[in-house]
Amino acid sequence: MSLIFKKNKREIKPLIVLFFFLAVTFCNAQNKIEHPNLILTKKGVEQIRKELGNIPIFDATLKAVKEEVDAEIALGIHTPIPKDYSGGYTHARHKRNFLILQKAGVLFQILQDEKYAVYIKDMLFQYEAMYKDLPVHPQTRSYARGKIFWQCLNDSNWLVYVSQAYDCIYDWLSKAERRKLEKNLFRPFADFISVKNPQFYNRVHNHSTWGNAAVGMIGLVMNDEKLIQRALYGIKDANLDPNAKDNDGGFINKNGKAGFLANIEEPFSPDGYYTEGPYYQRYAMYPFLIFAEGLQNVRPDLKIFEYKDSVLLKSVNALINLSDADGEFFPLNDGQKGMSYYSRELVTALDIAYHNGNQDPGLLSIAKQQNKVLLDDSGFSVAMGIKEEKEKPFVKKSINFRDGADGKQGGVAILRNNNLELVFKYAAQGSSHGHYDKLSYSVYESGDEVLQDYGLARFVNINHKGGGNYLKENKTWAKQTIAHNTLVQNETSHFSGKYEIGSKHHSEFYLFDDTNSDLQIVSAKENNAYPGTQMHRTLVMLKSEEYEKPILLDILKVNSAQKNQYDLPFYYMGQVMKTNFKYSPFPTLSPLGKDNGYQHLWKEAVGKPSSTNNSRLTWLNKGKFYSLTTITKETDELIFSRVGANDPEFNLRRDAGLIIRRPNTQNTLFVSTIEPHGNYSTVSEFAVNASSSIKELKVVLDTEEYTAVLITSLKGNSKLFIVANTNALKETKHRLKINNKNYTWFGSYYYN
Amino acid sequence: MSLIFKKNKREIKPLIVLFFFLAVTFCNAQNKIEHPNLILTKKGVEQIRKELGNIPIFDATLKAVKEEVDAEIALGIHTPIPKDYSGGYTHARHKRNFLILQKAGVLFQILQDEKYAVYIKDMLFQYEAMYKDLPVHPQTRSYARGKIFWQCLNDSNWLVYVSQAYDCIYDWLSKAERRKLEKNLFRPFADFISVKNPQFYNRVHNHSTWGNAAVGMIGLVMNDEKLIQRALYGIKDANLDPNAKDNDGGFINKNGKAGFLANIEEPFSPDGYYTEGPYYQRYAMYPFLIFAEGLQNVRPDLKIFEYKDSVLLKSVNALINLSDADGEFFPLNDGQKGMSYYSRELVTALDIAYHNGNQDPGLLSIAKQQNKVLLDDSGFSVAMGIKEEKEKPFVKKSINFRDGADGKQGGVAILRNNNLELVFKYAAQGSSHGHYDKLSYSVYESGDEVLQDYGLARFVNINHKGGGNYLKENKTWAKQTIAHNTLVQNETSHFSGKYEIGSKHHSEFYLFDDTNSDLQIVSAKENNAYPGTQMHRTLVMLKSEEYEKPILLDILKVNSAQKNQYDLPFYYMGQVMKTNFKYSPFPTLSPLGKDNGYQHLWKEAVGKPSSTNNSRLTWLNKGKFYSLTTITKETDELIFSRVGANDPEFNLRRDAGLIIRRPNTQNTLFVSTIEPHGNYSTVSEFAVNASSSIKELKVVLDTEEYTAVLITSLKGNSKLFIVANTNALKETKHRLKINNKNYTWFGSYYYN
Repeated sequence: MSLIFKKNKREIKPLIVLFFFLAVTFCNAQNKIEHPNLILTKKGVEQIRKELGNIPIFDATLKAVKEEVDAEIALGIHTPIPKDYSGGYTHARHKRNFLILQKAGVLFQILQDEKYAVYIKDMLFQYEAMYKDLPVHPQTRSYARGKIFWQCLNDSNWLVYVSQAYDCIYDWLSKAERRKLEKNLFRPFADFISVKNPQFYNRVHNHSTWGNAAVGMIGLVMNDEKLIQRALYGIKDANLDPNAKDNDGGFINKNGKAGFLANIEEPFSPDGYYTEGPYYQRYAMYPFLIFAEGLQNVRPDLKIFEYKDSVLLKSVNALINLSDADGEFFPLNDGQKGMSYYSRELVTALDIAYHNGNQDPGLLSIAKQQNKVLLDDSGFSVAMGIKEEKEKPFVKKSINFRDGADGKQGGVAILRNNNLELVFKYAAQGSSHGHYDKLSYSVYESGDEVLQDYGLARFVNINHKGGGNYLKENKTWAKQTIAHNTLVQNETSHFSGKYEIGSKHHSEFYLFDDTNSDLQIVSAKENNAYPGTQMHRTLVMLKSEEYEKPILLDILKVNSAQKNQYDLPFYYMGQVMKTNFKYSPFPTLSPLGKDNGYQHLWKEAVGKPSSTNNSRLTWLNKGKFYSLTTITKETDELIFSRVGANDPEFNLRRDAGLIIRRPNTQNTLFVSTIEPHGNYSTVSEFAVNASSSIKELKVVLDTEEYTAVLITSLKGNSKLFIVANTNALKETKHRLKINNKNYTWFGSYYYN
Repeated sequence: MSLIFKKNKREIKPLIVLFFFLAVTFCNAQNKIEHPNLILTKKGVEQIRKELGNIPIFDATLKAVKEEVDAEIALGIHTPIPKDYSGGYTHARHKRNFLILQKAGVLFQILQDEKYAVYIKDMLFQYEAMYKDLPVHPQTRSYARGKIFWQCLNDSNWLVYVSQAYDCIYDWLSKAERRKLEKNLFRPFADFISVKNPQFYNRVHNHSTWGNAAVGMIGLVMNDEKLIQRALYGIKDANLDPNAKDNDGGFINKNGKAGFLANIEEPFSPDGYYTEGPYYQRYAMYPFLIFAEGLQNVRPDLKIFEYKDSVLLKSVNALINLSDADGEFFPLNDGQKGMSYYSRELVTALDIAYHNGNQDPGLLSIAKQQNKVLLDDSGFSVAMGIKEEKEKPFVKKSINFRDGADGKQGGVAILRNNNLELVFKYAAQGSSHGHYDKLSYSVYESGDEVLQDYGLARFVNINHKGGGNYLKENKTWAKQTIAHNTLVQNETSHFSGKYEIGSKHHSEFYLFDDTNSDLQIVSAKENNAYPGTQMHRTLVMLKSEEYEKPILLDILKVNSAQKNQYDLPFYYMGQVMKTNFKYSPFPTLSPLGKDNGYQHLWKEAVGKPSSTNNSRLTWLNKGKFYSLTTITKETDELIFSRVGANDPEFNLRRDAGLIIRRPNTQNTLFVSTIEPHGNYSTVSEFAVNASSSIKELKVVLDTEEYTAVLITSLKGNSKLFIVANTNALKETKHRLKINNKNYTWFGSYYYN
């Protein structure tokens, strides 16, 4: 500009006027965007600074974050040339960098200490210097290799976090510095993970959600409408092969949908259930909510939190409900056990949902357990809420989540009574992270597993184990049907274990009723897992004075066009105490089968059913007793299995199972109860109520229309449960004669 | 008496005077013994009543006990005809009865509510009515069957507790009631468990301690000198076969010693270590201390708490030191894991030791964790101490306990640094509950097992499992050498697994030094486990800046008269992360051997040592990483084992082990390090310091006199450790040339 002014002033006066007019207009346009504006706002920062020292949980988090960042600053800046998979040094270092950059950003805003801005600037320029000439990452395993990391996914993580840091020092940087960073680092970075990798970016998948958020957030900071549009709606002209697949075997893009809004639209059901399952929902929550918060601040007109009937806010509630008594997520599909609502992603999700939603006091009680908050406007809201003692307990009740964008692709139901929790999965495939386990369930008592879902076969980020990535046993064992508490036909997995087939189908909701806490029920059907075979599973959580704790009734009705071998496993956790049936241990152990997960099970012993036709296993786990009572046929085999065969690298846990094997059978019925009872203390050495209180289970009727089971307690009291198999309507009146006695009732089930 | 007074008053006046004189004299003699006098005293009761409501922990315990007893009173009195083993109803009911009777007794004294006295009286008379004609218990498994219970041991438990109840209502009962109870119940009861069962009573064994205390306590209450003498000194003329054995395979009475004092004298070492191990020490503490307290109150002249240099008081301290960071006892010999200083026996032991010892403020901190006290004079002392905030932390340090009555039969050493604990056993056999595991050790971090001692094979009081008694796998597996982290020669157990031989020998103390917390050392030798073979194991706990946490160096030197196969197992807890050696899993599993515990191990995989001769296993347990690095020879086999073969009733846990097998070797040296490092969180999914920091272990010298090991860290720093194998004297000056370098030092070891 200075060059212009060297010309004759008079000559150019009109030009100058015009120029200033344009410049002011331009600057105004620019200034409409204040910084920070993503997760912190100018107003928010002012409020926070005013209250500092008076908001205990915020102050404590701030102190911890400051200590962490100061320690990192003292260690110096390291941006090594990318080399490793997720368990290795360069991966861990770059991951740490982006986490610290984000934190340094908020510290700069809140504490207004320039050292944090300097640290961010220096590191950003190191990245800027490196990124220009950086080739694609040397590790080749990913379908979409990144540059900083081995996959674009992690590069996107980087940009989501670093955008926030950049936002925090945006105004502090000179225009020239910003221009350099944007030209050499941020724009090429955003382009690389999007237009250069459409197979990664243009999908409906948690990977793409990260990609969309990354591009969108840097777009918001830079006020780059092109990037924002690309974030919201995807790449318009990406022509992807609809049959291409990613590393996990999932389709890249079957239907052409893409962009952040499509990623909200598709995987979330109207109830806020995310089709991949809670572990990945947790992972995806961060980009969903952090980008939504940015949009809310910069583009409030989009009303992103109201999008699809406020599904983003609902999803936070859903996720909390998908955790056990300890806050650990149920490991449906690929899920690492132990991941919980104490994770940083859930701190983020919860704070943002509280701040941008209706300030649910239940969320505050979870935030209080988390004992940390985001150092931003939403974290401030939460901290103030806790300070003002607004919290109320978050009561996790029985709940049914529909799956599918329209809520019509089956679902996941949780029944809860006292300390007992049942998790029933009758959902869609759950994209590439889905397991082949239609109508499977798991059971928890007080946060301890009673019947487990194995979860994934992976040690996330532990380099020793396949670089911290998915292990091959995830496919050969963890995803297979036999790894779950559900029916296996002829030793094959549902949908032949094929994603192409599984992703076309879902189970069918039949019934859910939690209105009576003493009798809660869920029921669903599966007609496609094995062509020609229909499965219908009904689970009832009963509470009565006959039994110390709630018990579970499990009715699985199977109809098939031909005779099959059926295996129904129960992965009980703990040590065998007693059986009422005889079994023979094997002197040497062989795998139970050759394929479909069976090759990973040792056959420890095989039993013949009790002559009473009620076979029972009682076990002990963590000081509590449990009994499985199941109606068996004379020709059944009861197989004691143990995970761990064909496991050459000790990747699997040596967990136990009991498999009910029913050979050469066409239509059949499996009826079982899971009964928690009693306790044992290794300190007092008292064993209380160590035995089942069930005397007998008996099927008194089983037709196409009705199945009736009589449960008799040791005290001698009998209760009859009838389920209508073909009519779930509440208003229907049923009449039925069993053993010359007439039963009449309204609705899909009877119990008395 | 009233009949007398119907005669002519004048005639009998002198007689009356004489009568009254005699009566008063008689009554005075009787009154010398006040009641209560065992665990409560008249003075104590007065003090307690005065402070009620002002001693929080006592008041809280009182409230809990009152609720418990009131609930039992409401349920009515049940004294079923004895029938069951320890897991069954009649056993549990009678056990509950005696526990409740004792509690009702103290409630009567403290609350002075007669309903408790009435309850006790009524139940005692039900027992009185039953006992007279009660045959010996119908279950026949015990070498000394009781009447109320299947073994005299439990009958003795009954009397120890019921004596206290009787003491509390003694004065409240009429003389006639007392006479009836004593004649028909207490005296025959005391005789049955003593003179009628000398094989139970006249031993040095925890069984007899209970018997002695039972007889002695009822003797103190009844002021029966004969019983008291029998309690203190045993039955004088019991001629027992010195070769007879009990159910556990232990000798009944080898040396003729008997009585309470002999039971203090023999099994306790001068350091307060009880030869059977902490689990049984805990069990025995109750009769030892409760009877001692009674003696202290009634026979203070005996100075029982000063007996054998105050060994009873020392033993309480020893027991607390024999627990891990969670207060759980190390399961040396037969010990059920999970038993801890929160048990009722330890509440008793600690309160009595505090009250009758020197009021150690460290004990108060444990009492505060226990959060309950005895409702008696000693519990009152503790409660007052806590109220007055006298407690100081009980710091568990490294400690060496000598075993044997004279302290000369080996011992048990514990090395501690930060959160790491090593438990090294070089003790005597430990009577019939002893395991064949000379020079074995186990390792703990923060209360979690790193290398485990299997403990016992029993589910105490769980009826499902062999009536709650010892399972046969206790003998065939848990006691065997291969079940422990120590050397097995030619697949046989120490002393051929024979109690007769094992009980004649003990390991030899060589060295213990904990003066330098950065280098703590213990060393011992075993010359009798395998005739002709000498083992010398030296364990060093090192802390240095090279390693994140303390590490353990394990040097096991073996000399033998002939060539042998040596197996050295490491029962690591957790999941294999990585090895630096190749191994092949077995496609089917077979037991590792046929006998001596080997029949219970599955052979999962076998490896060949790393070509570097440093073989390494890294594993993960409860969020922490560990590495075992061991110097191997080319011909060694590395066997991955799993407990559970030949286990037809699922009595054993499926725990892992790594066995170093060295075939066809005469003299040899095993050198290993156990290195805890890093951590992993399933919430943050960060894996920190997941690999060993040891580059190399190298033996640079190994002669009869010296063994020298060089430890080189990944950072490249080397440290030399030398142990003098034949001279443990501190003052000796050693000179040694290794690789042309001279080393000179004082004392038994060198490190630099």
